[in-house]
Amino acid sequence: MSLIVQKYGGSSLADAKKIKNVAYRVAATSDAGNRVVVVVSAMGDTTDELVELAYSLTDQPPAREFDILLSTGEIVSSTLLAMTLEAMGYAAISLSGAQAGIKTDSAYSRARILGVNPKRIEKELDKDRIVIVAGFQGVTEDMDTTTLGRGGSDTTAVALAAGLKAEACHIYTDVEGIYTADPHLVTGAQSLAEIGYEEMLELATYGAKVMHPRAVELGELFNIPILVASSFKNSPGTLIHGGVSMEVRNKVSGIAHDLNVAKITVVGVPDRPGIASSIFEPLAEAGISVDTIVQNASIKNITDLTFTVAKGDLSRAMEVIRPIAESIDALQCASDSKLGKVSVIGTGMLNTPGFAAKMFSTLSREGINIQLITTSEIRITCIIDEAKVGEAVHALHRAFELEQAK
Amino acid sequence: MSLIVQKYGGSSLADAKKIKNVAYRVAATSDAGNRVVVVVSAMGDTTDELVELAYSLTDQPPAREFDILLSTGEIVSSTLLAMTLEAMGYAAISLSGAQAGIKTDSAYSRARILGVNPKRIEKELDKDRIVIVAGFQGVTEDMDTTTLGRGGSDTTAVALAAGLKAEACHIYTDVEGIYTADPHLVTGAQSLAEIGYEEMLELATYGAKVMHPRAVELGELFNIPILVASSFKNSPGTLIHGGVSMEVRNKVSGIAHDLNVAKITVVGVPDRPGIASSIFEPLAEAGISVDTIVQNASIKNITDLTFTVAKGDLSRAMEVIRPIAESIDALQCASDSKLGKVSVIGTGMLNTPGFAAKMFSTLSREGINIQLITTSEIRITCIIDEAKVGEAVHALHRAFELEQAK
Repeated sequence: MSLIVQKYGGSSLADAKKIKNVAYRVAATSDAGNRVVVVVSAMGDTTDELVELAYSLTDQPPAREFDILLSTGEIVSSTLLAMTLEAMGYAAISLSGAQAGIKTDSAYSRARILGVNPKRIEKELDKDRIVIVAGFQGVTEDMDTTTLGRGGSDTTAVALAAGLKAEACHIYTDVEGIYTADPHLVTGAQSLAEIGYEEMLELATYGAKVMHPRAVELGELFNIPILVASSFKNSPGTLIHGGVSMEVRNKVSGIAHDLNVAKITVVGVPDRPGIASSIFEPLAEAGISVDTIVQNASIKNITDLTFTVAKGDLSRAMEVIRPIAESIDALQCASDSKLGKVSVIGTGMLNTPGFAAKMFSTLSREGINIQLITTSEIRITCIIDEAKVGEAVHALHRAFELEQAK
Repeated sequence: MSLIVQKYGGSSLADAKKIKNVAYRVAATSDAGNRVVVVVSAMGDTTDELVELAYSLTDQPPAREFDILLSTGEIVSSTLLAMTLEAMGYAAISLSGAQAGIKTDSAYSRARILGVNPKRIEKELDKDRIVIVAGFQGVTEDMDTTTLGRGGSDTTAVALAAGLKAEACHIYTDVEGIYTADPHLVTGAQSLAEIGYEEMLELATYGAKVMHPRAVELGELFNIPILVASSFKNSPGTLIHGGVSMEVRNKVSGIAHDLNVAKITVVGVPDRPGIASSIFEPLAEAGISVDTIVQNASIKNITDLTFTVAKGDLSRAMEVIRPIAESIDALQCASDSKLGKVSVIGTGMLNTPGFAAKMFSTLSREGINIQLITTSEIRITCIIDEAKVGEAVHALHRAFELEQAK
């Protein structure tokens, strides 16, 4: 008897009809002879409504109270799914994150899972019950409820799959799987049959919103195969796993993009030790994440330092940077908020020079100017004009023949 | 430093403005130098909405899941009140029923409190925090959430006041206190300054909906003075306590009424041992509560047996009774669903014959026929025509001079 962990997102549980649809899918998995643990998100817009309620009372909801408030959304959907399964004649029980043994630190609103104690889940599975777990939440040592932040329910599912040594972890969502590019942008985008953890991580980090990177990381760490599939259609979905076959090595998996990019350039920085930290430490202290950093080759001990931040952080970042630039005798401080990034992701990127060359020549042929380039083992990213991102994704998707991808 | 437990009902927390109003009242209690524990109900219609959600999925929600679902309503309001107090500069923390140490049996939807372990509350009070507790809920030995049923949040408040040895328990609601009669019916109805536990119990059981009997019972058991007052006005309210002064002894406190009464008469019952149990045991097994029971004096070993049930139970009760009536050779089985009851409640009722005489003569003067009479130490109840209940309450309120009550 296999143990399967399934996760259903909020759009799959938005109303009574959709909850019943999910219940049928869970029941079918159980009927097929599996033991089933289901992780649920909050119904539809519930979380947004709870957030609004809190902000109608205070501009700065205390983190602990805010977490408890938000956690009720997943409790509600977990009980409703359990009820629906019971009404269909299946033994089911809902458990909160605390009852499911999701132990976290006390970093409210972005708590990290410290461990999983699945004793209660195992007890319920042994009674032949389908176990429904409220996602996105855990509990501190003091038994206070925490939430896991963005991608929280995916993380709950993968953590439980690891803690329970499940055979598989299914993430059901409103799309058919992981695509070679954003299907809203590229009509020819294909759903991948499989992808490795590393490439999925890069895809998730560099634009594909389907899976949160931390859930993928956790999957890789515990070697849990993760199937991402639609909760509405019976399409095969995408399997994220470690043992991707030889044939798909040295192959581009997809094109990711992100429009939330702003650039800051500090011009004429004296090139001496400690300069970089004098700029980036204050940014880190202000809670601003810096993405790409590029330092030009130094001429006469003077260099330009360029880096990117999220658009929403730009004005705060400039406030931090201006006095520092002055204090280190830099010449100027410039910013550009109308940027985007486009990334080609695949295995063996750096060992296969043809990939980079093809990316640059494709963009050049489209008349797209590359402002910055960064690379990893399995990714090449170009920062370009925001207005050109759509064109770039289309051209790259064609150039790497992803319409034929499997 | 006094410890005060306050409870606010759902209508007092129905929206952001009302939650802020409650926060001001809690803050004022804290500013006056008290340690404060606040018990909250769910906001406005939240519980009804959650019930509707469950019934949109199944006609018979499993009790355990239903309780967890409903319990989220009080969690939400507890976090919102804590946030609001924090925003006003007061240290506050919300606790679930489980965290507040409300231990119950596992009779879902009507769980009984087995004990209170207020360790966590005391720890938070010692940190000078205002503690907000989600009412209406507790937790079983297995850490499963339960709800306490009707009057649950009042019961939570009185139980916590007992467990914490609080100086006082304040129940804030949308009326000004306990009235001499239903103020919606009798314009001259007065809010009482004080009332004894026993009379309050009779009032609550026989029609006044402000306090649930079980909370009053608990207050009496642990001798907790309970103040019932308005959350909107600064009126003094009604103090329910045991040490009611000598002057208010032998005095009528109020007139209660209830329109939910149906009567069944089994005519021509052979008067032999075991007949009563052959009728009432099957009713109890069917879960039907029987209220008043009257057996006429037996003539030639034949008697009539009359009893009352809630209107909603009448048709089921008749289904149970008819075959029994036949089997014991009763002559006939009649029912009347258009009845109500009116009760005069006060201390020393039975020892002061004038009370009963005044009640009967008042009803008679109004041309109201009395169908059944029942009494207790502190109550006289008459079952009358439903259509006459309003008149009866008005006439009795005048006859016992309750417009002048204090």
